[in-house]
Amino acid sequence: MRFNIRITVSLKEGMLDPEARAIQGALKNLGFETTALSTSRLFHISLEALDREQAETLGLQMCERLLANPIIHRYSVEVLQ
Amino acid sequence: MRFNIRITVSLKEGMLDPEARAIQGALKNLGFETTALSTSRLFHISLEALDREQAETLGLQMCERLLANPIIHRYSVEVLQ
Repeated sequence: MRFNIRITVSLKEGMLDPEARAIQGALKNLGFETTALSTSRLFHISLEALDREQAETLGLQMCERLLANPIIHRYSVEVLQ
Repeated sequence: MRFNIRITVSLKEGMLDPEARAIQGALKNLGFETTALSTSRLFHISLEALDREQAETLGLQMCERLLANPIIHRYSVEVLQ
């Protein structure tokens, strides 16, 4: 059965995020004041699995093996259908 | 008043996404078969605005001016609070 999952990968709280600071600075130069800015990556994945549980487990394994660095990232998996 | 907005930036349908293909290939090499994979960027932004409408408008302007390339990206802004 085909499932669509959505994986979100973000930096853990407290990790320095120079890219986000650069974006915040560039927005400021354009006249946009922001009080906080952080970024995440989203992965939309379609895969075959027996049930929702297996789809979620596969997503978590993908994070652990490739998509995230567990030292610096937090990640979550949502099974959409 | 402070608002939190979430901006999602993705490639438009039909745009080539070599990064997504590379990730899909790497997952396959690790034994994870996927039938589709695409990526998006999320920006979590806190800003001052008079009301929700202004917060959304500011988010859209940020996309147009900096965060997205309207030729190749689609983007959406959600006002969270």
